[in-house]
Amino acid sequence: MINFRVSFAAASFRFGAGRPLFVNRFAHSLASIASSEPDAPSVLTQIPGPKSNALKEEMEQVHQTTSINFFADYERSFGNYLIDADGNALLTTAVSRPALGAFPRSDFAQLVARSLHSVAPRGLRHVQTMLCGSSANENAIKTAFIHYQTRLRGGSPPTAQHLSSCMRNEAPGTPQLSVLGFNGSFHGRTLGTLSITRSKPIHKVDIPAFDWPVANFPRYLYPLDENRQYNTEQDERCLAQVSQLIDTQKSAGRDIAAVIVEPIQCEGGDHHGSAQFFRGLQGICQDNGVFFIVDEVQTGGGICGTFWAHEQWNLPTSPDFVTFSKKTLLGGYFYKDELRVNEPYRIYNTWMGEPTKLVVLEKVVEVIGRENLVQKAGQIGAKLLDGLKALEGRHPNLMMNSRGMGALCSFDMPNTAVRDNFLKKTLSKGLLVGGCGEGTVRFRPALIFTERHLNIALSLLDEAMKEL
Amino acid sequence: MINFRVSFAAASFRFGAGRPLFVNRFAHSLASIASSEPDAPSVLTQIPGPKSNALKEEMEQVHQTTSINFFADYERSFGNYLIDADGNALLTTAVSRPALGAFPRSDFAQLVARSLHSVAPRGLRHVQTMLCGSSANENAIKTAFIHYQTRLRGGSPPTAQHLSSCMRNEAPGTPQLSVLGFNGSFHGRTLGTLSITRSKPIHKVDIPAFDWPVANFPRYLYPLDENRQYNTEQDERCLAQVSQLIDTQKSAGRDIAAVIVEPIQCEGGDHHGSAQFFRGLQGICQDNGVFFIVDEVQTGGGICGTFWAHEQWNLPTSPDFVTFSKKTLLGGYFYKDELRVNEPYRIYNTWMGEPTKLVVLEKVVEVIGRENLVQKAGQIGAKLLDGLKALEGRHPNLMMNSRGMGALCSFDMPNTAVRDNFLKKTLSKGLLVGGCGEGTVRFRPALIFTERHLNIALSLLDEAMKEL
Repeated sequence: MINFRVSFAAASFRFGAGRPLFVNRFAHSLASIASSEPDAPSVLTQIPGPKSNALKEEMEQVHQTTSINFFADYERSFGNYLIDADGNALLTTAVSRPALGAFPRSDFAQLVARSLHSVAPRGLRHVQTMLCGSSANENAIKTAFIHYQTRLRGGSPPTAQHLSSCMRNEAPGTPQLSVLGFNGSFHGRTLGTLSITRSKPIHKVDIPAFDWPVANFPRYLYPLDENRQYNTEQDERCLAQVSQLIDTQKSAGRDIAAVIVEPIQCEGGDHHGSAQFFRGLQGICQDNGVFFIVDEVQTGGGICGTFWAHEQWNLPTSPDFVTFSKKTLLGGYFYKDELRVNEPYRIYNTWMGEPTKLVVLEKVVEVIGRENLVQKAGQIGAKLLDGLKALEGRHPNLMMNSRGMGALCSFDMPNTAVRDNFLKKTLSKGLLVGGCGEGTVRFRPALIFTERHLNIALSLLDEAMKEL
Repeated sequence: MINFRVSFAAASFRFGAGRPLFVNRFAHSLASIASSEPDAPSVLTQIPGPKSNALKEEMEQVHQTTSINFFADYERSFGNYLIDADGNALLTTAVSRPALGAFPRSDFAQLVARSLHSVAPRGLRHVQTMLCGSSANENAIKTAFIHYQTRLRGGSPPTAQHLSSCMRNEAPGTPQLSVLGFNGSFHGRTLGTLSITRSKPIHKVDIPAFDWPVANFPRYLYPLDENRQYNTEQDERCLAQVSQLIDTQKSAGRDIAAVIVEPIQCEGGDHHGSAQFFRGLQGICQDNGVFFIVDEVQTGGGICGTFWAHEQWNLPTSPDFVTFSKKTLLGGYFYKDELRVNEPYRIYNTWMGEPTKLVVLEKVVEVIGRENLVQKAGQIGAKLLDGLKALEGRHPNLMMNSRGMGALCSFDMPNTAVRDNFLKKTLSKGLLVGGCGEGTVRFRPALIFTERHLNIALSLLDEAMKEL
């Protein structure tokens, strides 16, 4: 593509620095490219050179580097020539968009450190960038499978038999491992993640799926403090089922390699789990050598009053994987040091994320910190929940189960038809709130949502209720 | 995220228009947001209003619209308020990045028309944007499954039994359908696409897979014109195997719903198939009611001398799906009119592509047209192939099977070790070419690759050969 590789790459830098926009560079004709690009390749160092190697070492601290050839200086690259971090000018194949896994930008490690790494959950230093939430979950799961099989082999790499049989999708190279998910969960819409998504039939029907086990997720009665015994029994029953499924699957030779769970089942209807439930779940995983994946695609980013929802569980140790997307603007996952995959191209794809999103995310994270927005989300969330409970008192036949974690609040209505009708009424008043699950109304305010907006929202909710 | 929603959305517009960069807008504090955003919601029309409805109708021509609520005016949106195309100001939930499936930009249909639609393969008017090649293939396959099952039901929607059983990943809602792929193919690395990827063991080992059938892809002898009979037999044998697998799978109640194939098996080693082979394959698919998916993630974009490689096959009718990514900067697929999925949220995800990439792609496509770059790729490709054949004559023990389609050229070396050593030597001379398959060297020049670059490249290849 004419001048595109360079143009785009330049854009992804110029963005941050506020320099002229890349689109001007499309004005180049083939002739002007020829006069502006190097006359010939020029190689000054070994490749990768010392600067690329130093950058690789820096990046190792926060992100795996197994497939990186060298770091690229996209600002100086032009036309058919890619300039690497050591100043080597390489006559090259087309690069239409930076391939982060193979030729990342020179400042990629810093970009990751200033954006994602600065909000890493306690205990999780390593991050893997991806494009979206589905690919985040897919790759966390793949990593779990790889480590589960490696452990079964006593740490050895795949044998020749593994390598040949996997090309036919047959054991032992293609194992019969499974991932345990929960009823009501949403983890994505690719064929793999759809096998563990169990929110709504319309997402799943007519699509083949892996025959993977499913456990129940707690369904609490509200208000919580009036239903402690019932809710504790919910936790215990669900945890017992998980333990049992781990045993059953192992007996059947279809080991559960990982459990994946959302802190709140958002798409499924804003179903909450207690801190005790999640601590118990992690304990069961640890006792059985099963990886514990927390899907924070919806809950991450500060809306829950902590940057990650699971930080409110007081886990004795961090989860094995924490996946993210949506508010982080690109997908990916944090993971424990020992879960790195050391062979290149096992966890890999063409783009491996999107640097322009990291540039934006860096700013977002900076502003969140400067304005103390996570704490404020917790505060406004408490007021939102109080407001919903007060409304529930006034409309007891229409509203129930008001609940929230920070500003991620919701309540239930009697059924889907009433809820949908209600959402139409709020929209007609200029209030855009969403639905999830069967009859749930969910609030997902921005971190800049203040008391002023809250008062307007509560008043419009009340008006809409009265019209039902 | 403070002011992020608006900032980003604005950026995606300002990009194209060359206005000030969005990062300036992060300077806003909570107080300045309050003074700049609307005082309260304001609803002027029904929602969706007449402008949103008209835009939806426009978009219907090129892209499905089943999940769209209304079109958004991200330029005018600010703070907690989303302004829709009709000027309604909605107090809103957080939108961290435009959700193309639910609230696309007002100019989305035009953006698609000027970028992707302007290069649509003959006979395929509809396009679905996605983020990457894996999600393009995943969703084309999902669409094939949905239509296959719908046809089995005589056009009826899923029954209550379908809807309930799919929540347990059980038949009939979760069908035992399969996708046929080819040995040597690469279609992605998600669990679904990895089940049809069969390029290298390291991509697949330790990862569970769907037990889907696989056929052989032709392996030709070169030069082609000296091996016609052998190569024709290759085509026939592979096609016979496909026919047989379709029958076998059907007898086993595991119908093949779709065949997916690359025009050239790129990652697998630049294995070409003949136009006759692909015409035969499409014919078998049509005879058996199996969908025919052409994966042009690597071959699309002009490098083959036509914008899509399959345009050189002289198919009697277009493929059912043509998937793309890489050079198109975002993923997606073109598909036949009758393969639309009419129920919302069956083919859907949060971002459904990336409008900023469409802005760039529009420019790329414009320059490709203005500079006649596709035709030029065909011309320079012919010269590249001639050059490789001449080199092959000089280094017959090191180079063999020189082949190409447009500028997508390659040759084979005796084994992986020799090839990898060769690639190190070319890199040390400043020539960055890639490897694929076992011992293949592949060329993927940019569309701005000219005779001047070709001469340098051929001379460096010759030097590197002499040093082996």
